[in-house]
Amino acid sequence: MMGRALKLTIFGESHGESVGMVLEGLPPGLALDMEDISQEMERRAPGRSWTSTARREPDRVVIQSGLYQGKTTGTPLCGLIKNTDVRSADYEALRGVARPGHADWTGHVKYGGYQDPRGGGHFSGRLTAPLVFAGAVARQFLRRKGVAAGGHVLRLGGVADRAFDPVLVNRTLLDNLREMEVPLLDLTAEAAMRQAIRDAVAAKDSVGGIVECAVTGLPAGLGAPFFDSMESVLSHLLFSVPAVKAVEFGDGFGMADQRGSRVNDELYYDRDGSVRTRTNHNGGINGGLTNGMPLLFKAAVKPTPSIGAPQKTVNFLEEKEIDLEVGGRHDPCVVLRALPAVEAAAVLAAADFLIEAGGEL
Amino acid sequence: MMGRALKLTIFGESHGESVGMVLEGLPPGLALDMEDISQEMERRAPGRSWTSTARREPDRVVIQSGLYQGKTTGTPLCGLIKNTDVRSADYEALRGVARPGHADWTGHVKYGGYQDPRGGGHFSGRLTAPLVFAGAVARQFLRRKGVAAGGHVLRLGGVADRAFDPVLVNRTLLDNLREMEVPLLDLTAEAAMRQAIRDAVAAKDSVGGIVECAVTGLPAGLGAPFFDSMESVLSHLLFSVPAVKAVEFGDGFGMADQRGSRVNDELYYDRDGSVRTRTNHNGGINGGLTNGMPLLFKAAVKPTPSIGAPQKTVNFLEEKEIDLEVGGRHDPCVVLRALPAVEAAAVLAAADFLIEAGGEL
Amino acid sequence: MMGRALKLTIFGESHGESVGMVLEGLPPGLALDMEDISQEMERRAPGRSWTSTARREPDRVVIQSGLYQGKTTGTPLCGLIKNTDVRSADYEALRGVARPGHADWTGHVKYGGYQDPRGGGHFSGRLTAPLVFAGAVARQFLRRKGVAAGGHVLRLGGVADRAFDPVLVNRTLLDNLREMEVPLLDLTAEAAMRQAIRDAVAAKDSVGGIVECAVTGLPAGLGAPFFDSMESVLSHLLFSVPAVKAVEFGDGFGMADQRGSRVNDELYYDRDGSVRTRTNHNGGINGGLTNGMPLLFKAAVKPTPSIGAPQKTVNFLEEKEIDLEVGGRHDPCVVLRALPAVEAAAVLAAADFLIEAGGEL
Amino acid sequence: MMGRALKLTIFGESHGESVGMVLEGLPPGLALDMEDISQEMERRAPGRSWTSTARREPDRVVIQSGLYQGKTTGTPLCGLIKNTDVRSADYEALRGVARPGHADWTGHVKYGGYQDPRGGGHFSGRLTAPLVFAGAVARQFLRRKGVAAGGHVLRLGGVADRAFDPVLVNRTLLDNLREMEVPLLDLTAEAAMRQAIRDAVAAKDSVGGIVECAVTGLPAGLGAPFFDSMESVLSHLLFSVPAVKAVEFGDGFGMADQRGSRVNDELYYDRDGSVRTRTNHNGGINGGLTNGMPLLFKAAVKPTPSIGAPQKTVNFLEEKEIDLEVGGRHDPCVVLRALPAVEAAAVLAAADFLIEAGGEL
Repeated sequence: MMGRALKLTIFGESHGESVGMVLEGLPPGLALDMEDISQEMERRAPGRSWTSTARREPDRVVIQSGLYQGKTTGTPLCGLIKNTDVRSADYEALRGVARPGHADWTGHVKYGGYQDPRGGGHFSGRLTAPLVFAGAVARQFLRRKGVAAGGHVLRLGGVADRAFDPVLVNRTLLDNLREMEVPLLDLTAEAAMRQAIRDAVAAKDSVGGIVECAVTGLPAGLGAPFFDSMESVLSHLLFSVPAVKAVEFGDGFGMADQRGSRVNDELYYDRDGSVRTRTNHNGGINGGLTNGMPLLFKAAVKPTPSIGAPQKTVNFLEEKEIDLEVGGRHDPCVVLRALPAVEAAAVLAAADFLIEAGGEL
Repeated sequence: MMGRALKLTIFGESHGESVGMVLEGLPPGLALDMEDISQEMERRAPGRSWTSTARREPDRVVIQSGLYQGKTTGTPLCGLIKNTDVRSADYEALRGVARPGHADWTGHVKYGGYQDPRGGGHFSGRLTAPLVFAGAVARQFLRRKGVAAGGHVLRLGGVADRAFDPVLVNRTLLDNLREMEVPLLDLTAEAAMRQAIRDAVAAKDSVGGIVECAVTGLPAGLGAPFFDSMESVLSHLLFSVPAVKAVEFGDGFGMADQRGSRVNDELYYDRDGSVRTRTNHNGGINGGLTNGMPLLFKAAVKPTPSIGAPQKTVNFLEEKEIDLEVGGRHDPCVVLRALPAVEAAAVLAAADFLIEAGGEL
Repeated sequence: MMGRALKLTIFGESHGESVGMVLEGLPPGLALDMEDISQEMERRAPGRSWTSTARREPDRVVIQSGLYQGKTTGTPLCGLIKNTDVRSADYEALRGVARPGHADWTGHVKYGGYQDPRGGGHFSGRLTAPLVFAGAVARQFLRRKGVAAGGHVLRLGGVADRAFDPVLVNRTLLDNLREMEVPLLDLTAEAAMRQAIRDAVAAKDSVGGIVECAVTGLPAGLGAPFFDSMESVLSHLLFSVPAVKAVEFGDGFGMADQRGSRVNDELYYDRDGSVRTRTNHNGGINGGLTNGMPLLFKAAVKPTPSIGAPQKTVNFLEEKEIDLEVGGRHDPCVVLRALPAVEAAAVLAAADFLIEAGGEL
Repeated sequence: MMGRALKLTIFGESHGESVGMVLEGLPPGLALDMEDISQEMERRAPGRSWTSTARREPDRVVIQSGLYQGKTTGTPLCGLIKNTDVRSADYEALRGVARPGHADWTGHVKYGGYQDPRGGGHFSGRLTAPLVFAGAVARQFLRRKGVAAGGHVLRLGGVADRAFDPVLVNRTLLDNLREMEVPLLDLTAEAAMRQAIRDAVAAKDSVGGIVECAVTGLPAGLGAPFFDSMESVLSHLLFSVPAVKAVEFGDGFGMADQRGSRVNDELYYDRDGSVRTRTNHNGGINGGLTNGMPLLFKAAVKPTPSIGAPQKTVNFLEEKEIDLEVGGRHDPCVVLRALPAVEAAAVLAAADFLIEAGGEL
């Protein structure tokens, strides 16, 4: 469970009956554009684009509750996504095998061996489907508030995209990125990224990357000092996305080598009378609160741990060391599919703060 | 309020009566070593070492509740730290002034002008004093469990220390670091760091840095997939520490350019029969759960926003742009003082998970 | 959402797709006896026994997640119950009508008119189906711990059953009660209760009652002083059950007229060395904590607000006063169906405390 | 910790340094009338009126944080009340003694013997002092919203006061009750109540009672179905008050013997266009939500367990049965002092819901 005013519960296992979510605290009367939601689900779905596996699921969300005549009722919204196209047999051979970089071993310890091991069970990236659904709903709430969120692949397999202009990034750009198969600012990077993935596939290996996101239109003053700081709540959700291993706001680690005079972000009065900063090294956040500038963050996505190359590991049921070589389909790069999940985390955090601050429609 | 099984509330303003904390959920019967706690408080205290301001407070914690005959009772532990040596007059001239990089403006918006503006009020780094106290208590609980935590200044003003060996880092090293005035692995870095600070002082400016921490002795299986992942809970607390703008676990952002085969951390059986990994790129966490290896993370601390150099900004009460030049004492670098707060965040998260998992003494 | 270590979320509307629940925090490895769960669902189901309406739903729970090979995985357990046999047309005529005693008007205000009005929507007693399911699961956990829970109809339509012996009530009795169609200690009360209901039906009216419950086998020391007192947590859940308007523990209101010397419950050492009390006026709870004696409470269930007799009320959409006469089926008494929901509340509270206290299987 | 938008933490032991509270979530800018708060503290203070012990503490609250220039800042408000006039020696003789009706034994089990036993430690009724303080603050917020709360002694030692008129009860009456030393509707009851207490004192015994409270001015639609129902949240807080053993809303247990037609509370349009009910058997709550009518509830307060009469019990440290006769001062009746604590619980719940619903000042 996550959230204060907007509470999200997700459930499900990769090869169970379904995955799904319950979202509590949505304002009543929000008309849900199901077509828009489907598009968002599609961004995350397996089988999409150049980086994904053969497995193909429609990921259709079936609403169970909380929606009446196309609008939210204000009571808990439950959405289910059936698991189809599951080939559990693929995983039988992996009983007791701790795939390096995966949660097989740690999950075994935590759940005492009772966890569903098929396809990663509850640890599966498939659980980001309900997260993305929840985010798609939150995004429609945010749109009503003039808030936009989006992101791009800043880095993939060692290939860099350009970074957002931290002051000028805006809704139009974010909306355009959402329409792109490979969201990039510098379109020329796509070819090299594709090549990096092809190289990894050829080596039965995988690649990681970095996504960069922005949220625009947030009012100043959202968040709180300390435990409910915008960075705290956002990072909490971002690190909930499997494979995310690093998060930074604004210049982030880059700030470490700078001086205060350079990254303090001087304030001025804009022509419309609003307070703004001339630069945005702090990523739109001061003292844990939004300052009205674009909120900016980056998240590192580690290379998919599932690879075809031979690895050494243990079988913890047989208590012996083994040589592992996993056949079948592997996703050589989940960066592109992680992007909508990362965006979902951001919009859920933003919606939570807005609703907490008294956000009717 | 933060935490599930071990709940922490902090309160106070920089120039109010006192700052303090309430810690709920501690197991009963924990003997508190007040001397050890004082030492930990001393690590964070202003006036310490080469990087801090002239202001000097003893930061003595006065226990109000939850302790009887030197041991925790199991009921809420409240500790107060009186605010002394406050010179509020210093701040009168700053009414309505949005110091760049500070929360003056964002706090004004959030609290509608009713916040205590003296010395940053509730946004002040002084609130890390109760955080460090809570951490010092949690640390004593962890010690009973064989868990150690510590860190060092990985980077400061552009000067680098060596990084932890992610596999070999251990309690002895961590304990030694805690005793050092400037915790470093490579002692030769100290002189250059001091020089970087002197240069900043001369320029009426400030410098930032990076701290690296490790927690050893944690059992495998702590944490949970998704919202209660170890990374989620830890980062939530870490970003509660003022000035922290980036967090990474294990190789973090460095993973983005790697391939899975390189960072998956192969598993093996150690001589004592325990499962371990040969490398530790994942920082001791797989699927949001500890794997029994050292837990490793880094946090970026931005350069202190308080600088003496002239800056442009606004006075939001007078609604005009102004030139700002703040006299008086400034801390040119809070990295060293942020370190115990960052460590406190880590030990509080670890203690929370251990107590939740049924951790009696 | 309810609970600390064992968290329950329920969702659904009476005439929506399904009602259901997500239960987080169950220990892994609990074998679920689905036959036993079905029987518990049957106790609550409409169409049961002499007091209920014609509507008949099987209330079959379909597990979506959290169960693998018949045992809990430790990850969120989601169960769905499809809504079938819904005749929404029955309710179309009631648009804007505030049925007295119902939540039509208050729900309209809260949800701004967007709530699902069919069959009471999310306010429907049907939502106790997932609650009872969650309770049936928690009950199986408690059984492993030697804890039993059960209850009987202490009062219905003015007809009284005998009360539990507060010291001697035990598992065998509670188990027997669960098997009875009309759980009573004094079987001779049944005829008069049936008659009271027949009289109410003849008058197109409804009757209320009181249920009395006991939980045996709880260890001493569960609960906490103040906000997490056993009475606080239990009453919170009990008042979540629609139609419950009063709750008392032990002698409850009866204590008000007593003296301390009479209701203090003197302690003694039992032959097995355990501490017990000779009487049990406090209902097994002292200072918010269980004392090892049977936990006892009563809950008042108000007469079903749905009646066929003419009533005066308002149509808040047409903003006028109206005469209301609702045809169709009505449940003249929900006391019997409320009983398993009330028991579910009790077992969920007990399980939450036991799991929080470190309750593995 | 208690509350969602308005979070309350209380701490302290009867004979420790101080008792206190932290209240998070108050809107900024609320001017605190400290004189009014002192009066409220006085209502609860020991030594007040005819029913209390000789011990006399001023119960002065010292604000530590969250208040600036007399107004709330919006950050955590911490208030401390020093423990003075403590005679711990009185309690030394009671080591290991389980006073019947008290939490000595249950607390010993829960805290493993590490609890502070002096004066009941954290279980002491003295902890209602910070609760009443928090309530006094919440009350001032409510006043700004036109909400009033108050109560009277409905029953004491078998002597009855008249009950509130559930429809006509209003702010003026509630304010008057608050000014009375013994809040009663029927002033002639006071003499008989005093006599009941004198009789109990003579018998070295104690008496219980019932308090009845009302909250007026609440808007319709506060609360939620199920777990956040007004009854759930209110009862949770009410049962946090030591000695409360029963709670009912509206007619409560009295509803059990009624028919729906009699207690459904028919609705009508008042002259000002507002929806009201002609009767108020449901105590101002339908479906867990306020309906705009006065909110009404009663709470039973058990006779003080501390009595001078001889009792049989156990010494759990010496593991033997003993005869107990406690000398010294005893409060023969805490009903009067429980009343402000019960009112505090009600106003805190109401304020929490109002703030959650977006309640600025």
